[in-house]
Amino acid sequence: MIKPVTSTPVARPDEVRRHNRTTLLRLLHVGGPSTRATLATQLGLNRSTIKTLVDGLAEAGVVEEKVPRPGRGAGRPSLLVLPQPHAAVVLAVDLQVEHVAIALVGLGGQILGRNSWNLRGRMGQPEEVITHVIESTAILAGDLDVTPVAAGVSVPGVVRRADGHVHEAPNLRWTDVALGERLGGVLQIPILVGNDAEFGAVAEHLRGAARGASDVVYISADVGVGGGVIAEGSALRGGSGYVGEIGHMVIRPDGRPCYCGSSGCWETEVGEAALCRALGLAEDTPRGAILFELRELGRAPETAMTRLAEFAEWLTLGLINVVNLLGPQLVILGDLLTVLPEAVLRHVGAEVRRRSLVSRAVGGTRIVSSALGADGKLLGAAEVAFEVVLDSV
Amino acid sequence: MIKPVTSTPVARPDEVRRHNRTTLLRLLHVGGPSTRATLATQLGLNRSTIKTLVDGLAEAGVVEEKVPRPGRGAGRPSLLVLPQPHAAVVLAVDLQVEHVAIALVGLGGQILGRNSWNLRGRMGQPEEVITHVIESTAILAGDLDVTPVAAGVSVPGVVRRADGHVHEAPNLRWTDVALGERLGGVLQIPILVGNDAEFGAVAEHLRGAARGASDVVYISADVGVGGGVIAEGSALRGGSGYVGEIGHMVIRPDGRPCYCGSSGCWETEVGEAALCRALGLAEDTPRGAILFELRELGRAPETAMTRLAEFAEWLTLGLINVVNLLGPQLVILGDLLTVLPEAVLRHVGAEVRRRSLVSRAVGGTRIVSSALGADGKLLGAAEVAFEVVLDSV
Ligand SMILES: [Zn+2]
Ligand SMILES: [Zn+2]
Repeated sequence: MIKPVTSTPVARPDEVRRHNRTTLLRLLHVGGPSTRATLATQLGLNRSTIKTLVDGLAEAGVVEEKVPRPGRGAGRPSLLVLPQPHAAVVLAVDLQVEHVAIALVGLGGQILGRNSWNLRGRMGQPEEVITHVIESTAILAGDLDVTPVAAGVSVPGVVRRADGHVHEAPNLRWTDVALGERLGGVLQIPILVGNDAEFGAVAEHLRGAARGASDVVYISADVGVGGGVIAEGSALRGGSGYVGEIGHMVIRPDGRPCYCGSSGCWETEVGEAALCRALGLAEDTPRGAILFELRELGRAPETAMTRLAEFAEWLTLGLINVVNLLGPQLVILGDLLTVLPEAVLRHVGAEVRRRSLVSRAVGGTRIVSSALGADGKLLGAAEVAFEVVLDSV
Repeated sequence: MIKPVTSTPVARPDEVRRHNRTTLLRLLHVGGPSTRATLATQLGLNRSTIKTLVDGLAEAGVVEEKVPRPGRGAGRPSLLVLPQPHAAVVLAVDLQVEHVAIALVGLGGQILGRNSWNLRGRMGQPEEVITHVIESTAILAGDLDVTPVAAGVSVPGVVRRADGHVHEAPNLRWTDVALGERLGGVLQIPILVGNDAEFGAVAEHLRGAARGASDVVYISADVGVGGGVIAEGSALRGGSGYVGEIGHMVIRPDGRPCYCGSSGCWETEVGEAALCRALGLAEDTPRGAILFELRELGRAPETAMTRLAEFAEWLTLGLINVVNLLGPQLVILGDLLTVLPEAVLRHVGAEVRRRSLVSRAVGGTRIVSSALGADGKLLGAAEVAFEVVLDSV
């Protein structure tokens, strides 16, 4: 990458030690229990350096060393280094159009406790949501006897990463909500607010279907449609944090007007309302009934292909654009798209690979369903929060 | 950014010195002559470290220190550190549909000599182009008495960065050409082959309209339409190097078939042929006649707006999509788009800002014309070549 000229960091020994400690901790946090020997290899450090680091972390109660369950191998088994979940706990919040979920997540990525509630009427107003998140967190943290040290908050909207300002979350009907500031003011911990699709992408990249992939687009498709981008191994947000509003890509210029000011956005063609129309259901059909209908349809592939033919074509066109613009090796479909009939998903994938110039160039972009399902955004929010605290655990 | 777990680089003192030297050289190369004091501030290094580095570079003949031309200030003027153009020379090649340009570019970014020729008939075949590039380079290098140490080659197509394999350059009618390997085999220097829009973006970012901007999309619009993306300050290519095929974003599903396999791609609506149609010219009108027609039209803004209304709308739709997907703060229009009548460009910019959700969120995406004009891709190719040699100058 062509980097602009910036100042040169000169690494001091204590900085190097701190950096190595954080890297080791991240490795354990994401990769799970490991032996000292494996850690040494993965980090490219010698065993005595690893020993010093692990001993320091064990003394601080951040990791524990344990004899693994007896296996088949001969000889004395190597000790496993395990991250201690309670050594660092973060709050994860997943704000959706119809409900809010919160979880307290421990070092290592385990959900220690969770809580969720539906949003109806006033409950969906920023004031009420913020109050409820704060109260529920206090109760959950009290029950579990932990104190979160940072929070990640997933929002289906356009968010300014720097201060967690929600610019527009149209499907929530939120505009200009200082969410980060207001939660931070009460909770007194760093609050990382981000777009839900971005958090979904982070979670799938670290713990789901995109492990090991360097270029990934995750597509959230709920009431709204959004995209989270992993580029060259890192979450891509752009300086302003507004990358990936793929739901407002115009693909049908003579289509329905969208609230965003354009017409025929991808969201108006493949979002929840469009899926309802395609299924012959009312646009406000409850989620349960949509899922039921899709499951039924899944048992009759030919009927599914016919009824969803037009929907599938809009899905295909949008995916071709995503692949041609962003060049991912892997596209992960989230939310409602994961429950489309198998035959439809297979057809869409084949069409994208056939008609996308870039897919042909990369030897075929894989299009798969989310591995983490409904927990993805919550886990992504937790990871983004961990990212800012791992160096001070 | 959420980084995956990777091994930790442990900086040794000689690595740090080498790194500082390269950073200083890049600063001089891109930013031009500078005083030691300014360099110290920009690099965050103390003056004695800077002195050691500059003395070393001067001794090696890579920089020179000179008294600046007398100014108005009192006292003895500070010496300026100047990069020496001949200390490192790279070859830049800009392969276009109708012609090829080559240049030898010296440290500091100055074009030391250039040569170009039109492609007609057999001249456009890979074999002939490669032969001609090699022969012209030898002649030019002989005339200038320099030896290029690396080469950058800009190609209007889909290129695999790793080895410079041109997968598809449809408007050149090239498929699967091992361009990097073949040029490298003869020239015996590193060959960096890349997409033309990507190189345009790099050049505008380092030396043109996008200096200081962190998130930029550069749009090349010649026979084909392409995009180069700067994200968070670095050129974004994706692991496979296939980011930014924005010309093959479908925006008019019922539009003309495109060679790529889709219909109604942005390229078929705003590429050179579409512009000809909009102007009422034959699709194979020579470039000069198109430019003449556009200049005439520029003198009659109202007529221009009427005749180019539909063209402008397709341009607007594509730009809305680019802004909503990639979230740039700045979009740079290159090539043919820079010569559109001023009134049309202003109208398109205003429409994109009005109708793009992301533009509104970032407070208005700027849409400007290229500052480097026809030399952009050549300069970008040179920069990409310099990037691999600056640490060994
Ligand atoms: Zn929209
Ligand atoms: Zn196309």
